[in-house]
Order: sequence, then C-alpha cells, then structure tokens
Amino acid sequence: RKRILVTGGAGFVGSHLVDRLMMEGHEVIVVDNFFTGRRRNVEHWVGHENFELIHHDIVNPLYIEVDQIYHLASPASPPHYMYNPVKTIKTNTVGTINVFGLAKRVGARVLIASTSEVYGDPEVHPQTESYWGHVNPIGPRACYDESKRISETLAYSYGKQENVQVRVARIFNTYGPRMHINDGRVVSNFILQALTGQDITIYGSGKQTRSFQYVSDLVDGLIKLQNSNYSLPVNLGNPDEHTIEEFASIIHEMVGGKSMIINKDAMEDDPQRRKPDITRATNMLGWQPLVPLQKGIKKTVTFFRRELMRSR
Amino acid sequence: RKRILVTGGAGFVGSHLVDRLMMEGHEVIVVDNFFTGRRRNVEHWVGHENFELIHHDIVNPLYIEVDQIYHLASPASPPHYMYNPVKTIKTNTVGTINVFGLAKRVGARVLIASTSEVYGDPEVHPQTESYWGHVNPIGPRACYDESKRISETLAYSYGKQENVQVRVARIFNTYGPRMHINDGRVVSNFILQALTGQDITIYGSGKQTRSFQYVSDLVDGLIKLQNSNYSLPVNLGNPDEHTIEEFASIIHEMVGGKSMIINKDAMEDDPQRRKPDITRATNMLGWQPLVPLQKGIKKTVTFFRRELMRSR
Ligand SMILES: NC(=O)c1ccc[n+]([C@@H]2O[C@H](COP(=O)([O-])OP(=O)(O)OC[C@H]3O[C@@H](n4cnc5c(N)ncnc54)[C@H](O)[C@@H]3O)[C@@H](O)[C@H]2O)c1
Ligand SMILES: NC(=O)c1ccc[n+]([C@@H]2O[C@H](COP(=O)([O-])OP(=O)(O)OC[C@H]3O[C@@H](n4cnc5c(N)ncnc54)[C@H](O)[C@@H]3O)[C@@H](O)[C@H]2O)c1
Ligand SMILES: O=c1ccn([C@@H]2O[C@H](COP(=O)(O)OP(=O)(O)O)[C@@H](O)[C@H]2O)c(=O)[nH]1
Ligand SMILES: O=c1ccn([C@@H]2O[C@H](COP(=O)(O)OP(=O)(O)O)[C@@H](O)[C@H]2O)c(=O)[nH]1
Ligand SMILES: O=c1ccn([C@@H]2O[C@H](COP(=O)(O)OP(=O)(O)O)[C@@H](O)[C@H]2O)c(=O)[nH]1
Ligand SMILES: O=c1ccn([C@@H]2O[C@H](COP(=O)(O)OP(=O)(O)O)[C@@H](O)[C@H]2O)c(=O)[nH]1
Repeated sequence: RKRILVTGGAGFVGSHLVDRLMMEGHEVIVVDNFFTGRRRNVEHWVGHENFELIHHDIVNPLYIEVDQIYHLASPASPPHYMYNPVKTIKTNTVGTINVFGLAKRVGARVLIASTSEVYGDPEVHPQTESYWGHVNPIGPRACYDESKRISETLAYSYGKQENVQVRVARIFNTYGPRMHINDGRVVSNFILQALTGQDITIYGSGKQTRSFQYVSDLVDGLIKLQNSNYSLPVNLGNPDEHTIEEFASIIHEMVGGKSMIINKDAMEDDPQRRKPDITRATNMLGWQPLVPLQKGIKKTVTFFRRELMRSR
Repeated sequence: RKRILVTGGAGFVGSHLVDRLMMEGHEVIVVDNFFTGRRRNVEHWVGHENFELIHHDIVNPLYIEVDQIYHLASPASPPHYMYNPVKTIKTNTVGTINVFGLAKRVGARVLIASTSEVYGDPEVHPQTESYWGHVNPIGPRACYDESKRISETLAYSYGKQENVQVRVARIFNTYGPRMHINDGRVVSNFILQALTGQDITIYGSGKQTRSFQYVSDLVDGLIKLQNSNYSLPVNLGNPDEHTIEEFASIIHEMVGGKSMIINKDAMEDDPQRRKPDITRATNMLGWQPLVPLQKGIKKTVTFFRRELMRSR
C-alpha cells in the first residue's frame, strides 16, 4: 500500500486513475485547481479514509509526503489550452518544476502525462518513441506541445541530475465517460451533436486521422508503466486509426438521429495523421489496448445521454 | 533616451550590447547572477550616472521600472548549459516568465535572445525562420534547445494575450573579445589551443559546419530588431559557412605555432550543418553582417593573447 499523489486527479483521465488506485487499496491524494476538473468526478471517494482532495494550483509550491506521483495537471483539449496560453505554459513549466522539487525532496517516483502532441504534425508514421517530432514553436498549439516537450526534458534532467525516478507516458487521443461535454474535442463534439440533432462538424477535409483509445486501457498502461523498471518515454494509445470523416459516420450510425455531417474551416497546424507504434509498451510492459472502438463509444454515448438528462 | 534593462548584461554578448547602448546615451540596468558573466566585462561603466549593475538571479522576481528589455540571461555554451540542466531550464522558463511579468506590468518592449539551436540538427539548409526545427526533446542538448523554444512560445503568448511587445532574435554562433576563455566553444577552444601549442581538438569528423558571426554585427542586429516594427523571429548570423575542419586550419594558420590538429569523439546529437538564411533580417531591418572572418578572428586572437598574459 502506497501514498500516491495524482495531480489533475479531478479531471477525466485522473478520476478514472483514482478509481483504480483506490480499488487497489492505496492512499490517494488528489491535487486539482478545478480549471477543467470537477469535484463530481471524485465525489464518490470524498469521506473515504484513504482519500484526500486538495484544492490547489500546482503553479504554487506544494509540501506533502508521498511515495508515488502521477502528474496529470494540465489543460488537455485545444479550446482549453488555448483559452489562456500563458497559464498553460506556467502549469507545464513552473507546475512541473514544483512536482519534481517535491519528488526530489521526498524521494517519490514521478510519472508525467506527456502526449502524442510532442510529435506535432508527424512526418514519421506510425509514431515511434525515437521520433523527434515536428512542432511549430510559435503556432497556436505551441503553448501545449512545447510545454509538454519541456516537461519531458525536465523529467530526464531531474532524473539524471537529482536521481528522481521518472516515467514518461506519451498519451494518444483518449475518450470515455467523464470527458467534458463542452471541451471541444472530437469525440465529445460528435456524440453531443449526434445526440442533440445538431450538425456534426468536421474541421477541414476530414481526411486527417486519429487513433482513439478507451480510458480504461490508458489507466492500465499508466499503472503498468509507473510500476515498471522502464524509464524512457512510452507511447500509450490504440493503433486503430480512423479518418475524422469515418469517425463522424461511425458515431452518426451508432447514435442514430437526423444530424447532417458538414465540413467547417480547418484548424491551423492541425496534425494530419496520428497513430502510435506501441511496440515498446507491448515489449516492456506487456500492455496493449483491449477495448474496441464500438464498445468504448457505446459506453461514452450512454454517459453523454445521462449528462444531457441531468442538465435539463 | 530610454531606460533599458539588459539581463545577462555582464556576459559576452550582453556586455558589448551595454557598451553600445551606453554610448548612445541611454540609461542601462544590467541584471546578472554572474554564473558565466564577469563584473570585469562592464567594470568600465561602474560609477557612470547612467549605469546600474544589479546582482540578481532572474529565476527570482524582479521589480524595476524600464522602457525596453534585452533578455539575454542564460548559459550559452554546451559545457555551461549542460553543467546544471535543471537550472538551465529554470532560467529559461521561470526566468523568462518573470521578465514577461515585469514587461507586462511596466509596458516595456522585450527582445529575447533565442538561438539557431531551436532548429536543432536541421533538415532544411540554410535555415529560414519558417522552419519548425529538428530537436531531440530528451537529448543532452534539450535543456537548452527546448527551453529556448518554449521561451519563444512564451514571448508570443504574452504578446498575443497581454499585449506585451516582443522581438525574437534567433542568434547563430557568435564570437569575439570577452568570450570566456574556458567555455568550451569551438572558437575559444581552437584559439586557446593554437596560442598555447596544445592539440587543436576537432570533435567527430570535422565535416559538420557552422557559420560564425562577429559580435559587433550581432549587436547591430539586436538594436535594429528591438527598434523595428517587426515582431516575428529573425535570424541574426553570418551566412559565411565553414566546416569545423576548415575552421581549425584557418585558426592554426592565423595564430601560427606548432599545434597539431587532431580528431576526438563526436558529441551526441551534434548538429551537422548550420547556416542562417538572413533574407528576413536584410529585408525587414536592412541588416547584414559586415565583419569578415579573418578580421574578426584577428581581434579575438589579440584578446585571448592578453587574457593569457593577465592570467600568468
Ligand atoms: N485525454 C487525452 O486524450 C489526452 C491525450 C494526451 C495527453 N493527455 C494528458 O493527460 C492529462 C489529463 O488529461 P485529461 O484528458 O484528463 O484532461 P482534463 O482537463 O480532464 O484533466 C486535467 C486536470 O488538471 C487540472 N489542472 C489543470 N491545470 C491545473 C493546475 N495549474 N493546477 C492543478 N490542477 C490543474 C484540471 O482541473 C483537470 O482536473 C493531461 O496532462 C493531458 O495533457 C490527455
Ligand atoms: N554567443 C552565441 O554564440 C550565442 C548564440 C545563440 C544564442 N545566444 C544567446 O545569447 C545570450 C547571451 O549569450 P552569451 O554568449 O553572451 O553567453 P554568456 O554566458 O557570456 O552570457 C550569459 C549571461 O547570462 C547570465 N546568466 C545566466 N543565468 C542567469 C540567471 N539565472 N540570472 C541572471 N543572469 C544569468 C550569465 O552570468 C552571463 O552573464 C544567451 O541567451 C544565449 O543563449 C548566444
Ligand atoms: O516539497 C517540495 C519541494 C519543492 N517544491 C518546489 O519545487 C521547486 C523546485 O525544487 P528544486 O529542489 O529543484 O529547487 P530549489 O528549491 O533548489 O530552487 C521549488 O522552487 C519549490 O517551489 C515544492 O513545491 N514542494
Ligand atoms: O468538432 C470537431 C472537433 C475536432 N475535429 C478534428 O478532430 C481531430 C481531433 O481533434 P481533438 O481536438 O479531439 O484532438 P487533437 O488530437 O487535435 O488534440 C482534429 O483533426 C480536429 O480538427 C473535428 O473535425 N470536429
Ligand atoms: O514587475 C514584475 C511583475 C511580475 N514579475 C514576476 O513575473 C511573473 C509572471 O507575471 P504574470 O503577470 O504573468 O503572473 P501573475 O503575477 O499574474 O501570476 C510573476 O509570477 C512574478 O513573479 C516580476 O518579476 N516583476
Ligand atoms: O573543441 C571543440 C569545440 C567544439 N567543436 C565542434 O564545433 C562545433 C561548434 O561547437 P560550439 O560548442 O562552439 O557551438 P554549438 O555546437 O552550440 O554550435 C560543434 O560541431 C562542436 O562539436 C570542436 O570540434 N572542437
């Protein structure tokens, strides 16, 4: 039994991770500033003797005692991270420095939630961990992409220089229950649009691809990686690749209804292809995603249906 | 007449910039933690009514009133920035955030000293400002390269979001008097080795190229850029490209003496080619480098000769 800190633990991925860690019997401390996270995501643990929820912004120092850290605090969807680019960078630089300062002091192991965005608009396909990436340092996505890249640099700098044990997960697009209904990501947008009979909005041609991973698979991978002996970056994603166009049709069909699929302006610097090479995760962690798209989408649709009822 | 802050103003480039700004009659404030800078570089201004020297680490907040900022504080040579990678990153993230926080509060314009290292080991040659670069986010140079990239991202984020006026200079290899005699850069190493009759050490094959700019040209460019209306990144460098091998011969010949030119192990992730495309600087600033290599090297050799005498 360990004392585990989850920064960003009231968010989408974080709250599922917290569920798993609590079920395994650990002591879990969540630190969150509720920028995109919600108390409701972890409400079911409030009052449990192994659980603590700290309302705190990671840009400010944090002094607690823990054995392991999952550092997830960061806005994650384009509209959220572009809302306040300066704050996005502060969270991923100053915030990450604070996490490593804490880890260094207490001797905790840190897993950071990096992202497939470190590969930018990739020229290597599928993306392996050895690829250096193709990122515009001054583009509209840079506040996120570049700050995740420097978080990785920080991880290995603290690792080498201060002997902090580090794990780096490069997470590919993930979906599932507790995604924010209005966070503007493609999965939530399309499901919401289909459920409410609005137009399903494809940005650009729809020929760009993404590979979607169900959240329970990611949580498996994060826990396996944290407890492994492997310290280089590891891709965690589902190699099942689809064009956004296909994806719109799949959701449209599953949900039914009378939405039209329409095309809107393309997003600036939108990565054109994305698919993880997961050889490393399979070899080093014995991990692979298990939940097929249809099944995952079904669960997510059920969640969104309930959310819509609640908000009415 | 303006009040101008130069962070890193006791360093190599900074001190030459300070000389020029003082000669132009401005009030100049230097902030430096003396990590690689020396009081001696600006000693001749100490006591002048327009000059102030503040011993301060830019990682900590700074409250002063100024009109313009040249933000140069950062270790710059590989041995220096690799000496303490965590500190290098803190300086370029937290330090740069403090500079922009200050600029935002007082309404000052900021020029940041970025670098050709944002292009990494480039696949586009010569490098234009629109090239996104090729950088290893977890390699030994990452603490510098990635932190300069995020500094640029910060600049444009503060620019767009907080209306801070920003200028970004992507500086290519620069040399001249007041370079640190022991900073491990190729110009200082080769001159020192030639002057003291030691082996001239080429790392790797010597087929890698660099383009060397004399410091007075850079200072011209920095001042022109700061006072221009142009806010996108601008390369400042001399397009006169040489292999390191050629460069070793040039210096060997100019200095004379009985040094041997030898090859040592290559550096990890050493960029193989580097040459600025300076079309933008020429068109937007009317700038181009004026000092030919032979002339610049001669002045630098004279400086190093004196330094060696002093230290004896
Ligand atoms: N979901 C994905 O597809 C995906 C893909 C790649 C990487 N990631 C990464 O995984 C992590 C979790 O993402 P998510 O999808 O759960 O997003 P999310 O927005 O649901 O969760 C992020 C959490 O961090 C919190 N947070 C943000 N800034 C903070 C700060 N300064 N201090 C304290 N807490 C702060 C938010 O309130 C939220 O609870 C993020 O680091 C994200 O970059 C997610
Ligand atoms: N010289 C080059 O070839 C070159 C090329 C590209 C970019 N640059 C950039 O130009 C700038 C100046 O480089 P330089 O060659 O004069 O190097 P330098 O080492 O001589 O100067 C850097 C100065 O910054 C100071 N400094 C470092 N960390 C600081 C901190 N935390 N707080 C306050 N002061 C700090 C140092 O003491 C030094 O005086 C740097 O930002 C560098 O990255 C230089
Ligand atoms: O338990 C701790 C220890 C450190 N820090 C923060 O982490 C940062 C980086 O720590 P590090 O030890 O690298 O820096 P230092 O304190 O030496 O500047 C510090 O500035 C503190 O703000 C923290 O939040 N909690
Ligand atoms: O309503 C939407 C939202 C997103 N997208 C596209 O879907 C892909 C995935 O976008 P998302 O914001 O989910 O994540 P990203 O992988 O871009 O961070 C991108 O090509 C977007 O342009 C879309 O076509 N319609
Ligand atoms: O005159 C100033 C104003 C701000 N800051 C620092 O700059 C940082 C960023 O400023 P910003 O206004 O973006 O941040 P905020 O103060 O809103 O957190 C702050 O944390 C301060 O530490 C500074 O050093 N001098
Ligand atoms: O004693 C030395 C120092 C440097 N170099 C090489 O010279 C080039 C320029 O190195 P420097 O450290 O001056 O600058 P940077 O690599 O940052 O351009 C690189 O290819 C180095 O490997 C060399 O051959 N011998």
